[in-house]
Amino acid sequence: MSERGWIVPIGGAEEKLRNPRILKRFAEVAGGPHARIAVVPTASRMPDTGPRYVKLFRKDLGVAEARTLDFQTRADCEAPELLDFLREATGVFFTGGNQLRLSTTLGGTPVTEIIRQRNREEGLDVAGTSAGASFLSEHMIAYGNEGPTPRADMVSLAPGMGLTEEIVVDQHFAQRDRLGRLLAALAYNPRPIGIGLDEDTAAFIDPEEGLEVVGSGAITIVDPSDMEFSSMDSARPHEPVTVIGVRLHVLAEGAGFDIPSRRARLPAAAG
Amino acid sequence: MSERGWIVPIGGAEEKLRNPRILKRFAEVAGGPHARIAVVPTASRMPDTGPRYVKLFRKDLGVAEARTLDFQTRADCEAPELLDFLREATGVFFTGGNQLRLSTTLGGTPVTEIIRQRNREEGLDVAGTSAGASFLSEHMIAYGNEGPTPRADMVSLAPGMGLTEEIVVDQHFAQRDRLGRLLAALAYNPRPIGIGLDEDTAAFIDPEEGLEVVGSGAITIVDPSDMEFSSMDSARPHEPVTVIGVRLHVLAEGAGFDIPSRRARLPAAAG
Repeated sequence: MSERGWIVPIGGAEEKLRNPRILKRFAEVAGGPHARIAVVPTASRMPDTGPRYVKLFRKDLGVAEARTLDFQTRADCEAPELLDFLREATGVFFTGGNQLRLSTTLGGTPVTEIIRQRNREEGLDVAGTSAGASFLSEHMIAYGNEGPTPRADMVSLAPGMGLTEEIVVDQHFAQRDRLGRLLAALAYNPRPIGIGLDEDTAAFIDPEEGLEVVGSGAITIVDPSDMEFSSMDSARPHEPVTVIGVRLHVLAEGAGFDIPSRRARLPAAAG
Repeated sequence: MSERGWIVPIGGAEEKLRNPRILKRFAEVAGGPHARIAVVPTASRMPDTGPRYVKLFRKDLGVAEARTLDFQTRADCEAPELLDFLREATGVFFTGGNQLRLSTTLGGTPVTEIIRQRNREEGLDVAGTSAGASFLSEHMIAYGNEGPTPRADMVSLAPGMGLTEEIVVDQHFAQRDRLGRLLAALAYNPRPIGIGLDEDTAAFIDPEEGLEVVGSGAITIVDPSDMEFSSMDSARPHEPVTVIGVRLHVLAEGAGFDIPSRRARLPAAAG
């Protein structure tokens, strides 16, 4: 494989029992019965997080191999036996938890270097849910406040894993009233687009940067390409920020978005 | 020219009268008597900021041409007569002011696209002082608090112009007690290095990513390559953050730093 792998941010709380359509689709993308999936539970503090996904991928979804790579410390990120599996995997899955635990533990280590290089050059597919979704892109929302109106001081960005510079991801989007903080993140610099993921909803981003919605919720795309004005530079802490000229799409399953041209795609049935 | 241009962050308050060594060196790097320098005063609200630098470059330092490109709104960033000069310039100089005014006004417009492309491919040299220095790299410190101890919630990052992903810059460094916020920025993700610039001090970063110190103050390099631990993921707001294993260099004029190998270079006299 010489093309980039898929990048799959998931909004958290994805269905695991009755209709695990997101995890199933990821297993298919990563090779189906031939898939070898590395589960990285570093964001979580709960010891059963990794094994639970491993069981799901192996037993319920029938992939060839799935293993928990339990990077708990920066020293773990040098362990040859863990890195060896990462070099052979066809897919990587980051669990939820705390995205700053991902960036502080994995940032700049061989773990993220291998994943970045193999995603870019060898078609390694990479998914993450909740905190794991936030970590995938270059600019990561580290934390922030709730509410629909963007305010100064509302959101803190940090460097993420850097698989793409084109998007800023937020998750648990509708459930936690996070439009304001995504708008605030884009008001700093309207270069990337914002992707707000509802729970049980995923953005499957293919090697050509086409995005497809999978899951029971919606994806909100905030496209600031034509932003005419942002007052983020002059707003005082906690003051509302004026943002004029943002384009917004709410997309349910079947719809999509072409990131390079910044055009939304209708569901096939509506075509 | 097919190599990358110089990237020159300056710590603010650079000497302009008796011994303007930083501005003089930048004029030389950009072509000396043949230099054509675009001054971008967008960060500043003061109408004489641009003209003052233009006069300095033209009259005192004898460059061929210097002009103020006064991008005040996002619409200005499409103006052909301003963009034409940007396409012919050999150097670009960003004044001080507010770095969020730079990112909100110029982010994602043809202005930054032209500068990024010409710096990368055509050897365009780009300098910025104070807010202008912060804006040059991919990860920009938008604002933050003072003090030497990193604390959670202390610093806010935002996307900058993106000439390099390898550094995070802070300015007025010693004067405003900003080590804590630079450490906090790196504690999020120890991938880039931190560069703390004192006033009247510049980092001249050459096309091979060698950094040379010019000016009356010092540059503090915070290299987190071997960071063993950061508690940023578990610290509560305003709590101190534990950061273990950071490398720190304080470099005065004549010393340097090789960014790819992350090695400090002694002054020639000490060799």
